[in-house]
Amino acid sequence: MSEVNWKPVKSSSTPLYLQIVNYIRNKIMSGEWTIGTKLPSQRQLAACFEVNRSTVITALQELIAEGLLEAKTGSSTFVANNTWNVLATSSPNWPEYVQAGIHQPNRSLIQQINKAEAEPATLRLGTGELGSELIPTDEMKQMLISKQHQSLSLGYEEPKGNAQLRETLSRYLRKKGIQASPSSILIVSGGLQALQLIAWGLLRKGSVILHEAPSYLNSLSMFESVGIRGVGIPLDRHGLQMESLVRLKRQHDAALLYTIPSFHNPTGAVMSEERRKQLTEIAHRETLPLIEDDVYGDLWFEDAPPPPLKADDRGGNVLYLGSVSKALSPGLRIGWLVGPEQVIDRLADIKMQTDYGSSSLSQAVVNQWIQSGKYDDHLSQLRVSLLKRRNLTLDILRHCLSDCCTWNIPAGGFYIWLRLQKRFSARKLFQLALQKGILLNPGSVYDKMDDSHIRLSYAYPSESELVQGLQRLAQLIKEDFCQ
Amino acid sequence: MSEVNWKPVKSSSTPLYLQIVNYIRNKIMSGEWTIGTKLPSQRQLAACFEVNRSTVITALQELIAEGLLEAKTGSSTFVANNTWNVLATSSPNWPEYVQAGIHQPNRSLIQQINKAEAEPATLRLGTGELGSELIPTDEMKQMLISKQHQSLSLGYEEPKGNAQLRETLSRYLRKKGIQASPSSILIVSGGLQALQLIAWGLLRKGSVILHEAPSYLNSLSMFESVGIRGVGIPLDRHGLQMESLVRLKRQHDAALLYTIPSFHNPTGAVMSEERRKQLTEIAHRETLPLIEDDVYGDLWFEDAPPPPLKADDRGGNVLYLGSVSKALSPGLRIGWLVGPEQVIDRLADIKMQTDYGSSSLSQAVVNQWIQSGKYDDHLSQLRVSLLKRRNLTLDILRHCLSDCCTWNIPAGGFYIWLRLQKRFSARKLFQLALQKGILLNPGSVYDKMDDSHIRLSYAYPSESELVQGLQRLAQLIKEDFCQ
Repeated sequence: MSEVNWKPVKSSSTPLYLQIVNYIRNKIMSGEWTIGTKLPSQRQLAACFEVNRSTVITALQELIAEGLLEAKTGSSTFVANNTWNVLATSSPNWPEYVQAGIHQPNRSLIQQINKAEAEPATLRLGTGELGSELIPTDEMKQMLISKQHQSLSLGYEEPKGNAQLRETLSRYLRKKGIQASPSSILIVSGGLQALQLIAWGLLRKGSVILHEAPSYLNSLSMFESVGIRGVGIPLDRHGLQMESLVRLKRQHDAALLYTIPSFHNPTGAVMSEERRKQLTEIAHRETLPLIEDDVYGDLWFEDAPPPPLKADDRGGNVLYLGSVSKALSPGLRIGWLVGPEQVIDRLADIKMQTDYGSSSLSQAVVNQWIQSGKYDDHLSQLRVSLLKRRNLTLDILRHCLSDCCTWNIPAGGFYIWLRLQKRFSARKLFQLALQKGILLNPGSVYDKMDDSHIRLSYAYPSESELVQGLQRLAQLIKEDFCQ
Repeated sequence: MSEVNWKPVKSSSTPLYLQIVNYIRNKIMSGEWTIGTKLPSQRQLAACFEVNRSTVITALQELIAEGLLEAKTGSSTFVANNTWNVLATSSPNWPEYVQAGIHQPNRSLIQQINKAEAEPATLRLGTGELGSELIPTDEMKQMLISKQHQSLSLGYEEPKGNAQLRETLSRYLRKKGIQASPSSILIVSGGLQALQLIAWGLLRKGSVILHEAPSYLNSLSMFESVGIRGVGIPLDRHGLQMESLVRLKRQHDAALLYTIPSFHNPTGAVMSEERRKQLTEIAHRETLPLIEDDVYGDLWFEDAPPPPLKADDRGGNVLYLGSVSKALSPGLRIGWLVGPEQVIDRLADIKMQTDYGSSSLSQAVVNQWIQSGKYDDHLSQLRVSLLKRRNLTLDILRHCLSDCCTWNIPAGGFYIWLRLQKRFSARKLFQLALQKGILLNPGSVYDKMDDSHIRLSYAYPSESELVQGLQRLAQLIKEDFCQ
């Protein structure tokens, strides 16, 4: 029921209310709106149809009289019947099917965020994506136009993905100190898919994954869907705290550790070189495989972060995850997973059963982009733009919020992890801001117990939106919270 | 262990065997070949490295002496250790992880077929894809070059997919008699993903799906992976037999029926208009939702098949599945699922958790292709080419195999379902043909009990390969079977 983009024709000889009756009846008869479907509110319908609310009410009453709709508690209206049913047969009970599936729906908070993101007017201060100004769409078009796509193949690719792209990635990873031959690289449709393949392919029900607390992983419900549990490990500005790691690994007999060592989501932290060494050592001693999520690793401002854990991997202990979604274009849906060949073979087999490979067009474009050196050029520019936005954000925060909030100074990536002082509720702030059209990512997305943080991202909004949005946010915090 | 594309340098001063020792040691030390990894056979290694087998043996013995490899039964060699382990720590037991996952691996027969498909020399007579000559790669390049991709967006798309593509599909479907507004369409990464979303989103463990016997569905292990069972319903050349449908639905309390009414995979059958009417009626009376897989529907030769079941859907009873993979390009990975909005909303939510949407580049290209009318032009040409290949195939079959086989005459699509007479074993023929470099799809892929059919596809091989391959196949059948 997300889109009602039809409107009655005001110049028609058919009364407006009757046009609406016909429209809704048609939706129901065609099966698009099945029994149990909830209609938008009268107010929403009036706005969509651009008619008075009384016209909507007349139309709904007509349909209720026909037995197609029924009014329930409050002013909610539901589809109650359809002609097919009236003809003494029954429609599938889709609401029951929809609730039966094994895969859990997104958490309601995430659904609320997704919904707000779809509203064009929303000022998005928490979104972890590059804004359209930072995506090199024009260069991409140029490349598509000028190069003849000599390598363009539109058939199915090999199970592990386009061979040329894997060659290119093998060379690209070598610059990070990672030795990975093409056969140990699996092309995936973004980092999220890599995590899903790991969840299905390598873990049994009841397994425990350790992760930083807070963590991006908590925003996903897919691990829960297959009976895998997450356990958080405290983190400071140098990354994971090692003290509790060994204890928690043993206590839960954890199967894996998931970590974002560079420009952590949501805290922006960079794991220090010393911690990385410790982690590598502990992981080996405790036989704890690691998933290293390095999707932000190229987005440093002044100095590159320490080499990835994978560069120091001697026993095939690390599954390494990269992607172009954060640094180039999320819409291409291309990422890569690097690991021991037997693991990559197993996950490639599952990927073939899942979506039969990633878009060969996207793979060809990413290959050309990296191979031609355009990716490096783009990164140089992107770092300057992101740094400028980071500084702008920090200036406003210092100026407006230094008496009631604290925050990190990220050395790369997208995120500022804003801590509200004096026991303000981040959940409450999220709802208040949303009412004013500002979308924040509250800390509870990343740690269900957290109610004192907001994840800000300076990557999505334009500079002017950033200034405007942050000032309005600051005002909101001051008015409602800092008195 | 799929790719060993390194070779020792013959002109080097380092002995060949030592270069091989260093190469393998490096693979093990870097973690690409983990403990338990099985090496290719000595013969295979000798072929890959282009050295004598004795050189390989010398190298392996050296590594066994170092404790890095160990020989097991037969001449198999496994990775036994790595330096990290020698330093008294242990590597993850990846073989255990690889076996633990919830998702089942592809059936071994399918894996064998996938492997043979990756060999460039294989003559593929069963592959259900368009051959490269039939994919309009040049027109696609032209389109990419000439049009300025005004609509190219490289950010994330809406949960249900690119809005313009859904508009375009809504119009395209209307021509088939299907009324579907953009909000009841979900863009998926191919038909396979649509089935997976249905398996996770709408069905509980222990559910039963009815399907034609034989059926494409039996080639997939994903339903089994989530505890969903398939039950086959007999089929003749007019499609599903209705007699057993009601009985089996009630007996198993089936949750869904999956059907390919037009140019069925693997039998090529077209469900008659009368049967479609009966099925629609029974499905309503028995409250049995349908999945209508119509990915071959556009590929008719002389007359279009009867309208889709979805065109006659009055109660939102049909989930309708389309794709460009069979008629345009499998590499784009774009398909669509049409159904009641509450179902589409639920599956869109899962898709967002799975891969965060399909490639926006692929979506833009498919939109342009259909909207511009190029898709229709391409279909006209493709129908002529496929018909020519079908006729060629039928000529050869009639000429060479009419005394020991029978077959259908497909009115569209890709497939000829060849029945071997006199109790010949299709499994045995598959293996014999594979030894001679000819890849067939044996009937057991589509019905585990079937041992008398071969699925031939005239879509993949070129005309000359088709002639050559079919003649060799006929010879094989005659020699080994028809005496």
